[in-house]
Amino acid sequence: MNMIDVITDKKLGKELTQEEIELFVDAAAHSSVPDYQLAALLMAIRLNGMTARETTALTLAMQNSGDTVDLSSIPGIKVDKHSTGGVGDTTTLILAPLVAACGVPVAKMSGRGLGHTGGTLDKLESIPGMSVALSGEAFLEQVKRIGVAVIGQTGMLAPADKTLYALRDVTATVDSLPLIASSIMSKKLAAGSDAIVLDVKTGSGAIMHTLDGAIELARAMVDIGTLAGKPVTAIVTGMEQPLGTHVGNALEVKDAIDVLAGRTKGDLLDVSLLLGAHMLVLGGAAGTVEEAHGKLVRALESGAGLEKFAEMIRAQGGNPAVTEDITLLPQANVVRPVFVRKHGFIAGMDTTALGIAAQAMGAGRQRKEDSLDYSVGFVLPVRIGDEVFPGDPFFTLYARNEDEADRAEEAIRSAIVLSEEAAVRPPLWYAQVTRDGVIKPS
Amino acid sequence: MNMIDVITDKKLGKELTQEEIELFVDAAAHSSVPDYQLAALLMAIRLNGMTARETTALTLAMQNSGDTVDLSSIPGIKVDKHSTGGVGDTTTLILAPLVAACGVPVAKMSGRGLGHTGGTLDKLESIPGMSVALSGEAFLEQVKRIGVAVIGQTGMLAPADKTLYALRDVTATVDSLPLIASSIMSKKLAAGSDAIVLDVKTGSGAIMHTLDGAIELARAMVDIGTLAGKPVTAIVTGMEQPLGTHVGNALEVKDAIDVLAGRTKGDLLDVSLLLGAHMLVLGGAAGTVEEAHGKLVRALESGAGLEKFAEMIRAQGGNPAVTEDITLLPQANVVRPVFVRKHGFIAGMDTTALGIAAQAMGAGRQRKEDSLDYSVGFVLPVRIGDEVFPGDPFFTLYARNEDEADRAEEAIRSAIVLSEEAAVRPPLWYAQVTRDGVIKPS
Repeated sequence: MNMIDVITDKKLGKELTQEEIELFVDAAAHSSVPDYQLAALLMAIRLNGMTARETTALTLAMQNSGDTVDLSSIPGIKVDKHSTGGVGDTTTLILAPLVAACGVPVAKMSGRGLGHTGGTLDKLESIPGMSVALSGEAFLEQVKRIGVAVIGQTGMLAPADKTLYALRDVTATVDSLPLIASSIMSKKLAAGSDAIVLDVKTGSGAIMHTLDGAIELARAMVDIGTLAGKPVTAIVTGMEQPLGTHVGNALEVKDAIDVLAGRTKGDLLDVSLLLGAHMLVLGGAAGTVEEAHGKLVRALESGAGLEKFAEMIRAQGGNPAVTEDITLLPQANVVRPVFVRKHGFIAGMDTTALGIAAQAMGAGRQRKEDSLDYSVGFVLPVRIGDEVFPGDPFFTLYARNEDEADRAEEAIRSAIVLSEEAAVRPPLWYAQVTRDGVIKPS
Repeated sequence: MNMIDVITDKKLGKELTQEEIELFVDAAAHSSVPDYQLAALLMAIRLNGMTARETTALTLAMQNSGDTVDLSSIPGIKVDKHSTGGVGDTTTLILAPLVAACGVPVAKMSGRGLGHTGGTLDKLESIPGMSVALSGEAFLEQVKRIGVAVIGQTGMLAPADKTLYALRDVTATVDSLPLIASSIMSKKLAAGSDAIVLDVKTGSGAIMHTLDGAIELARAMVDIGTLAGKPVTAIVTGMEQPLGTHVGNALEVKDAIDVLAGRTKGDLLDVSLLLGAHMLVLGGAAGTVEEAHGKLVRALESGAGLEKFAEMIRAQGGNPAVTEDITLLPQANVVRPVFVRKHGFIAGMDTTALGIAAQAMGAGRQRKEDSLDYSVGFVLPVRIGDEVFPGDPFFTLYARNEDEADRAEEAIRSAIVLSEEAAVRPPLWYAQVTRDGVIKPS
């Protein structure tokens, strides 16, 4: 059996054997077959699909292609959280300290953003002095001591996924459900937590544009977790608009601090509480989602969550005073308030276009080697369903210069659909998927 | 528009525009996009297909990606012939001189074999002194002077096809009808003839295993020719067994000489007369296939065909005496007659296995750089439908040594299916495809 046999079988729509899957994953991890053969196989998988059995075998083979993190020395049930990615989604910065403040240890390895805006690591690095490059030992020690750490990846987790992911990006094979599910789950399983809460986005800014697709993806990942012996709860949430009102690295840190300080309500808070409640349940800190929700609210109101965030920042070398004084975060050169021009209802947003606008301002990378401007981005307090009038505050730009502010203003205005008729607010979440099935909001 | 857009469109099953097809063909010709992107696109084409319009655009773009041969200085209608390839198929060696002897100029560029057995060039080179490396000028001059030349490719014909063909071979994307049709036709159109006769094989040793597939391929190529303004006639013939009784380079030259000398009858002669008749019709040397057939038979009987072959060999530096004395061809070390072991009817042959057996004896290349032993191969006079008895002559091996003869004997015996019940002789041809439609034998 060789690589051509594997490609041929998938081309003919056959189910690949465990042996065939291990052959190509091993080849991807060690670059022992040419990229063009992997590319042909990825397209055959994209077009002919994979069974649940194949997807799980692929996930486990990718997980085992490199290092795995051993968190067993940390007492308690470690719960990880993963979002399929969206704009203005800074739930990790809120959840890591808040869940830890409720007694569930969070030992999280995060990624950098390669999409429109920065990733969790980029956001954290916008805090003066903050380091995300801890050794494996220091990482474990910090979680044991204060219950939380969010760092960049240590070691080589799922190197086969790294190769395949990079290749998918340049061969138009990103949008394959089994490839998305196995990519996410291989890294999560290698990262060593005992249970996982997944936030699967649906809508214009998400990897799955339809609700059915998002539910199917959620189900595939829950199935993989179940087969791997790790409980997984997936919540399908909306990405019709940015989750938080702030988009940009330091701006999203500010948003998270505002939420933890109780100053900001709204979708970002509500989704954080929803995901956090499931994390507490999986972590054994609450018997029901309702009980967990109450615990999280109390940790917010008492200031324990914000305090834990300050503790984490201090432990990782950052200036914890940012949690009290957000002007210590990087500030943009140009701050421009933008006003509504005509009356209407916010009927929709092109979330991807909003992300690209932030990227163009310097908040995201176009190439891996690009450096970011942490200070830039925008604050967009209006939400779908809102009625707006000429002269109302619309959004605020934080830009490097007036030219870039001009372009961003234009792009953001075009990305927001105004209608003359009243528009409906989208629901916060659409489905909850566990091994027991799918629940939709009542 | 870039390469990712092209891959995405084909992945989604869209019809590619002329501009998109030209983009990737140009990229293939100039190696200006990575092979993994071409590989992903080839798999998307293999799985999602191409319309007739796309296939024609692809053919013309590949034809125009390199040099094209200008045969206009040769008087008359130049007719080319192409076979999709098979075992023991030496029709070119018979047809080139025979058709030329009937007054239709044949200016043919042929290929080397990369499959099981040698190609036409390899067979010609087994004739002592024969050269197939003529300059473009010498090639035209020879056809003007004696009406026929068969040489290797001059210049860079269809370089985009060369890149894509090599990539298809290692990405399991050979078996795509639009890719096969456009590959063949781009090279044939670039080679400059005015009309083309195609021999599309079907059966166990052919690229298309089913008759429907072979007819569909024939129709696609006829359509491309029609749209390119060059008449094409395609004959679907059987490859259930080797066409001639001789397999191997010098052995096939001997077979061709025996046919031209009138010593050998059978399928190789009959298929040659069928294809040749259509060549004469397209070349304007006969009004009907029947009239053309008669002309060819007279050229055989008068010895004009064999004489023309001798003339071509002499013109290209070879020893024309081989046409009178076949012992001047390379002779094998070991000649072993093999006999039938038990009574039965020849019910079928694994033609591919027979080709591989010849390749293993040294008659074909496994890698591009392999050199051939012209003398080796085998002669298999039995045909499907024949009844054989123990002790009857079965086949004769021409090998480099006894070991290789042992292995070949074993392989050839295994490739021939003997049955206790009478078996039916397969028909010589299955369909004739022209722009006017499909005709099946009555």
